[in-house]
Amino acid sequence: VQCNSKRIITPVDCRYRCWETLMAILVAYSAWVYPFELAFMSKSSPHDAATKRLLYISEYIIDVFFGIEIILTFFVAYVDPNTRLLVWDSRKIALRYLKTWFLMDFASTIPFGLIVYVCTDRHKLGLFYQSVFGMLRFWRLRKVMQLFRRLEKDIRFNYVLIRCIKLVLVTLFFSHLAGCVYYILADTYPHSGKTWIGSVNPNFREGHVLDRYIASVYWSITTMTSVGYGDVHSMNSREMIFNSVYMMFNLGLNAYLIGNISNLILEGTRTTMEFRNSIQAASEFVSRNQLPESLKEQILTYMCFRFTAENLNQQGIMNELPNPIRKSICEHLFLPAVQNAYLFKYISRETLLLLVAKMRAEYIPPGEDVIVKKQAPENIYIIMSGEVEVIDSKEGKEQTTKMLLSGDILGEVAAMYGKPHSYTFRTKTMSQLLWLKTSSLIEAMQTKPVDHQLILKSFREMN
Amino acid sequence: VQCNSKRIITPVDCRYRCWETLMAILVAYSAWVYPFELAFMSKSSPHDAATKRLLYISEYIIDVFFGIEIILTFFVAYVDPNTRLLVWDSRKIALRYLKTWFLMDFASTIPFGLIVYVCTDRHKLGLFYQSVFGMLRFWRLRKVMQLFRRLEKDIRFNYVLIRCIKLVLVTLFFSHLAGCVYYILADTYPHSGKTWIGSVNPNFREGHVLDRYIASVYWSITTMTSVGYGDVHSMNSREMIFNSVYMMFNLGLNAYLIGNISNLILEGTRTTMEFRNSIQAASEFVSRNQLPESLKEQILTYMCFRFTAENLNQQGIMNELPNPIRKSICEHLFLPAVQNAYLFKYISRETLLLLVAKMRAEYIPPGEDVIVKKQAPENIYIIMSGEVEVIDSKEGKEQTTKMLLSGDILGEVAAMYGKPHSYTFRTKTMSQLLWLKTSSLIEAMQTKPVDHQLILKSFREMN
Amino acid sequence: VQCNSKRIITPVDCRYRCWETLMAILVAYSAWVYPFELAFMSKSSPHDAATKRLLYISEYIIDVFFGIEIILTFFVAYVDPNTRLLVWDSRKIALRYLKTWFLMDFASTIPFGLIVYVCTDRHKLGLFYQSVFGMLRFWRLRKVMQLFRRLEKDIRFNYVLIRCIKLVLVTLFFSHLAGCVYYILADTYPHSGKTWIGSVNPNFREGHVLDRYIASVYWSITTMTSVGYGDVHSMNSREMIFNSVYMMFNLGLNAYLIGNISNLILEGTRTTMEFRNSIQAASEFVSRNQLPESLKEQILTYMCFRFTAENLNQQGIMNELPNPIRKSICEHLFLPAVQNAYLFKYISRETLLLLVAKMRAEYIPPGEDVIVKKQAPENIYIIMSGEVEVIDSKEGKEQTTKMLLSGDILGEVAAMYGKPHSYTFRTKTMSQLLWLKTSSLIEAMQTKPVDHQLILKSFREMN
Amino acid sequence: VQCNSKRIITPVDCRYRCWETLMAILVAYSAWVYPFELAFMSKSSPHDAATKRLLYISEYIIDVFFGIEIILTFFVAYVDPNTRLLVWDSRKIALRYLKTWFLMDFASTIPFGLIVYVCTDRHKLGLFYQSVFGMLRFWRLRKVMQLFRRLEKDIRFNYVLIRCIKLVLVTLFFSHLAGCVYYILADTYPHSGKTWIGSVNPNFREGHVLDRYIASVYWSITTMTSVGYGDVHSMNSREMIFNSVYMMFNLGLNAYLIGNISNLILEGTRTTMEFRNSIQAASEFVSRNQLPESLKEQILTYMCFRFTAENLNQQGIMNELPNPIRKSICEHLFLPAVQNAYLFKYISRETLLLLVAKMRAEYIPPGEDVIVKKQAPENIYIIMSGEVEVIDSKEGKEQTTKMLLSGDILGEVAAMYGKPHSYTFRTKTMSQLLWLKTSSLIEAMQTKPVDHQLILKSFREMN
Repeated sequence: VQCNSKRIITPVDCRYRCWETLMAILVAYSAWVYPFELAFMSKSSPHDAATKRLLYISEYIIDVFFGIEIILTFFVAYVDPNTRLLVWDSRKIALRYLKTWFLMDFASTIPFGLIVYVCTDRHKLGLFYQSVFGMLRFWRLRKVMQLFRRLEKDIRFNYVLIRCIKLVLVTLFFSHLAGCVYYILADTYPHSGKTWIGSVNPNFREGHVLDRYIASVYWSITTMTSVGYGDVHSMNSREMIFNSVYMMFNLGLNAYLIGNISNLILEGTRTTMEFRNSIQAASEFVSRNQLPESLKEQILTYMCFRFTAENLNQQGIMNELPNPIRKSICEHLFLPAVQNAYLFKYISRETLLLLVAKMRAEYIPPGEDVIVKKQAPENIYIIMSGEVEVIDSKEGKEQTTKMLLSGDILGEVAAMYGKPHSYTFRTKTMSQLLWLKTSSLIEAMQTKPVDHQLILKSFREMN
Repeated sequence: VQCNSKRIITPVDCRYRCWETLMAILVAYSAWVYPFELAFMSKSSPHDAATKRLLYISEYIIDVFFGIEIILTFFVAYVDPNTRLLVWDSRKIALRYLKTWFLMDFASTIPFGLIVYVCTDRHKLGLFYQSVFGMLRFWRLRKVMQLFRRLEKDIRFNYVLIRCIKLVLVTLFFSHLAGCVYYILADTYPHSGKTWIGSVNPNFREGHVLDRYIASVYWSITTMTSVGYGDVHSMNSREMIFNSVYMMFNLGLNAYLIGNISNLILEGTRTTMEFRNSIQAASEFVSRNQLPESLKEQILTYMCFRFTAENLNQQGIMNELPNPIRKSICEHLFLPAVQNAYLFKYISRETLLLLVAKMRAEYIPPGEDVIVKKQAPENIYIIMSGEVEVIDSKEGKEQTTKMLLSGDILGEVAAMYGKPHSYTFRTKTMSQLLWLKTSSLIEAMQTKPVDHQLILKSFREMN
Repeated sequence: VQCNSKRIITPVDCRYRCWETLMAILVAYSAWVYPFELAFMSKSSPHDAATKRLLYISEYIIDVFFGIEIILTFFVAYVDPNTRLLVWDSRKIALRYLKTWFLMDFASTIPFGLIVYVCTDRHKLGLFYQSVFGMLRFWRLRKVMQLFRRLEKDIRFNYVLIRCIKLVLVTLFFSHLAGCVYYILADTYPHSGKTWIGSVNPNFREGHVLDRYIASVYWSITTMTSVGYGDVHSMNSREMIFNSVYMMFNLGLNAYLIGNISNLILEGTRTTMEFRNSIQAASEFVSRNQLPESLKEQILTYMCFRFTAENLNQQGIMNELPNPIRKSICEHLFLPAVQNAYLFKYISRETLLLLVAKMRAEYIPPGEDVIVKKQAPENIYIIMSGEVEVIDSKEGKEQTTKMLLSGDILGEVAAMYGKPHSYTFRTKTMSQLLWLKTSSLIEAMQTKPVDHQLILKSFREMN
Repeated sequence: VQCNSKRIITPVDCRYRCWETLMAILVAYSAWVYPFELAFMSKSSPHDAATKRLLYISEYIIDVFFGIEIILTFFVAYVDPNTRLLVWDSRKIALRYLKTWFLMDFASTIPFGLIVYVCTDRHKLGLFYQSVFGMLRFWRLRKVMQLFRRLEKDIRFNYVLIRCIKLVLVTLFFSHLAGCVYYILADTYPHSGKTWIGSVNPNFREGHVLDRYIASVYWSITTMTSVGYGDVHSMNSREMIFNSVYMMFNLGLNAYLIGNISNLILEGTRTTMEFRNSIQAASEFVSRNQLPESLKEQILTYMCFRFTAENLNQQGIMNELPNPIRKSICEHLFLPAVQNAYLFKYISRETLLLLVAKMRAEYIPPGEDVIVKKQAPENIYIIMSGEVEVIDSKEGKEQTTKMLLSGDILGEVAAMYGKPHSYTFRTKTMSQLLWLKTSSLIEAMQTKPVDHQLILKSFREMN
């Protein structure tokens, strides 16, 4: 495997990705230019000669690139669809390519027109072969599709943007294609006055190639978008047939566009929708029960905060990650805060890492009880940000006795003494708390007696 | 922070919200008027002079407002996208503004046209600068977008209405814009007869400005909605190109409209859909099993009631709220009913509040067994509304022995004696019941011996 | 309440429902005829006189009906939106009506035109008042909307059909309305040749009223569907303005139609989609693991069966129903089968009902193990339909020893002896089994010693 | 049942399926040809005579097939919608057919036209009857719908393709139908110049039948797709009415097309959407917490792997399958690997099968801890593919001590000694592991003492 892989390129290689992107652009250019050439360049007019030569040369250059691509494909590993693993065996790679796309790629790359022209010196026959085999290059458009499928999965790019660009390119390509076909239909019709362009402008062939192209694409887009002004329209059965087919195709294309965009909008408005639904439900609850204005205000504010907190809490992702990665993240995020908390100031880094790996962070909206008086001490909390009130309730009346800020520890007294909490702790602002199971703390202290003493010392100093 | 915040405005401030709304309206007006001015006011005709002067003056007034806005922005706190907290530091605010929108805002506010005109006295150059920098003011349309994004999240406004208004405004704006561009294209074309408006009405420039504007917008809307009558249509390549671009754009706009509205409809019909699906399932169940007509009637009626009860039960929201808010709600909703129930008539307000905080309300459809005979007394219930039957079943036959109404208590006998229920309690109509866990009641009584005696006394008097 | 309710009508009363439906139809007719009258009947032409008289008379008859409706509304109970209960108090009903719709209903019912005409003898003034107050009757279209909202929730009607009819009616109504407005615009324009209809047919006023109506509606529909042939088109600014507004409106209407239908299709294809997805997943599993053909066949057949069984199992609905209804259903469905099972043949009807109320029915696809050898006897089963194999496995080889059919009991031997099952029972065809928890059976037997003896006797006779 | 079923055909019979498909094709052909015949073949022109005769003959042949179909239907079992079982009783089959479709099928099959023509020798009357009863054959199009409904559920065909073909056929059929109606309207109108085709080409009847057909369908499609060039348009009230109805119908058809395609796209993009959402969430998590680049890389790579692993793990399907099928699959997939694992090399095939039936396979992304040090040995694992690291952690530092490959066993040491694991096992690459509960292994060993000894022997040899 090792020695083979020197000659075999991995498809996720950065340089190969660039090459693939270049190929996709060349394919797109080629698919764009080919119908234009066929429609507007086949009848040689003297003042288009320069353009024509340029287009032909560019095409031969592209063909060289495609030739390189064919050779390259024999050296690129592929993903087996069953096991989702890369296949590095060069024999398997070759076999797979030869079985699938090779013939099409080869046939569409060889410049048959040029060969025939050079061999037989008959320009017309060359042109005919050119046209027939030229169709094959549309086959290569799958490369562009592959590029877009890759970009859609690449989170560096905006998904909506990529899909919109794709839709725009598809639409533009088909209108360009249809425009060229329209012109071919008119150009090759025997009775020039009975064509869509000839009936409006009898000497259309003498116009500039750009004017003719604009007129063709204009009609094509008029039809595609179902505007159909009618200033130009089909004049003979041949045009009617093509136009009918094209209109039917557009029905599908339009539905495809609408379906895609409607899908994107659905995805885009979901969050707003959920937010509104939750707020709406709370608001209806208030009005149905005719709660007083002050309570209403409190409820709605709380619901808004809760929504924000939900967005900030990303514990779900943490839980999905494997152990080593999770440890690194915890270390990166929590270590600075934890080693400054008074309880853990003097303990060894090793124990700190052990504790930090077991901590979880959570955003809590204001007004929520983090610790309720008289409950058993399950967790201890470290405040990362925000403010927490210490509330003492005597004979049903609540009283704020203290305010804890970032860096303070909650519930450690109850945890160290192993007795129920003697205060209620309630968030005053949106707060990020770091929590650690009491049992995890005790376990860690049991395995490290030295650190146990240090923690106890810090605790006694403080309380 | 405190002293700073005196000079810094919070963005949720009511007055600042009003100012923002005013700004959005001015921006909208300015974006509306600018293309109109450019298209229809550039060639000075004597009877439009008054309109023209009015528009120019209004524009300079708006520019003053925008100037104030730029200065104001340096004093408005912003929400940090990472922590979702307001940033009050005036240096950070200034830095952020300077880095992002300041340049654009500044460039689009300075009346370059006027300055150039005043400095050089060359009207044409002033006009040219005006046009170029005028484009920048479209940039400010983001303020309108922000306004709508805010309104969409504001539950005081109907979501569907806000989104429809947004869609209508977007559509109108683009048709207005395209109408103006159409006119500019025709107005500046050298050969007047070969333009869309000139081919229909050769002396179009002599018509009233409103007629010309209507004709332009009419064509624009005809194209946008893909109606495309064809009474006016592109006459030259320049018009064809713009029209093609505009038609392609409309394809996207139409898809956007359809996607949005289809999204709204989906959301709107969901409840009806769910109701129908549940009833449909029940109905199919009946017909598949060929149940008799009377049973069918019972089942369907019950299902309808259940759906209503589900809508009325909003315990879910209660559970999401934090402790202090929940307590206030319970007190507000349940206290009047509870203190009139015979069992709790004489006990102290303090104990009442304690009990009320632990109660839950539920709507129960008719025909459901709230308490089943011989089961252990888990809860006691207070009837808020509706009727409940007391059913005694002897040797398989059920017999209604009593009817309980609003204010009565269910299951308290079994709870006080700590023995299984001796009757089945079944709702007769849709009823709202308040339930309290027996264990919560016992716990409360243990902590307050005085109230315990009072409750026992009430209980003995009654039974 | 009781005495009041004699004079107050409940809105769910069948006769009142009929009256409401009649009202909705009259409202629809009235909203349909009114614009037609205004457009085509205002200029009296001799050969339309008969039609005109007919329309006027019909209108006055309808006004009488609406008068009755207004009086009736004071006697119809309404549903309070907060409690979802009917309000029977006639004072509240009257107050609510007077506060909400009364004024509109009253103003739109009084034939002001006739009154003014009779009082002042000035036809033109009467006509003017007629037009202004006639607009108010569009307000009554909410009755039609209410009818449709009710029909949508009524499971006797097909949901898709009702919504499609609603969409068709909305579309037809707006095209009719726009058609009438088009004609009014043309009819009242001073310069007849510069109108959409006058430019095509200068003497259009002399044509038959139906021809004119068809032409108007034809143009309206051409525009609404965005076909826009262009054979008729706006000729003056007034027409352009109305047409622009109408086209914009149609954009919304089209989006509304598409959104609705796309919603219906989504709902309709869900079941097929789920079926395909489950089968597809199974099929991919097979091909990914390259399982042999025979296994593939088995897996796919099983998955199909499972889908059918899931549709047949409607235990979910049973569980949602309250106790008394559930008992009746069990009795109706299972009693005939259970009393023929050999174990329960001689026991009292009372015990039978007790057992039947605790039974559950389930469809099981072929090939599934109902009872596995050596497991504890949790349930006993009665076969309602289908076939079940009794399988003995010795030294890893399975052997079918017996075939059980409809009416047979499964697992009762193990349950009676209280020891593990000695055979595996596997379904051979899709089977409906009735299962009863062993504990429920034992409990029932303990409370009824007589029936216990009868069951034991039956059991001993059989085994 | 058995003897009956010899004469009764099951509807899932392969040959009957073929016959049904043939019937559907014939129905489609017939529904296609009939309107064409009516429109273009009714006025006999000499050079269409051959075509006409051919069409008539083909129709009579099809009628014969339909006759056979009617007879056949009496012998085909049907699925009872309540029990979802096949009904084989020939009397029930006949009764059901006679009650439902028989009359329609019969009336639409009898060639009334021919009969009347033969009997009365009056061609015109025959034609009239032909037309009237011909309409009935559209009724048979339900067979085509049934075919498509069947194909949609058949996983051998691509769902998207089938639904697209259905949509295309529906669209084509309606445009063909409308095209024929258009021609009939023009052909039968008394004043030829006032028809849509006559106004453009006065001698249209002399043209070739294909030209006329193309023109008709062209207009039909122009209208259907709402392009509406306007080169042909309605000329009289009759055409206007039909065209209005057709345009309204198209509004619905377009909405139906868009709804269907938008539905398909929604389904198609779901997987990509989910993948992107999960990656996006991870990416936002990283940037919000400002994690270093290396951690970001690790997290994103892991998330991608996890997505792939989820796709590969198909335990869900395994769990849904019944016992015997599951056993066969396990045997097929796992036996080769298990019998090569050193622990199970010498044991009997019977015990192997027992163990294999209790194993589960799972793909695990790289970096995940399969076994954590010091935990109790719940499972033992066999590596099917991939690499697993053995990690020893001393004083907080992790060290890879060994690398396990395909065929190796994990955690068997701890399981055999019944003590906690002494190493952590972590996947290095994407790995497929086969896991077996330790308890299942012990249980199997207890029942087979001979194999127990063989396993112990293998274990001792290795360790």
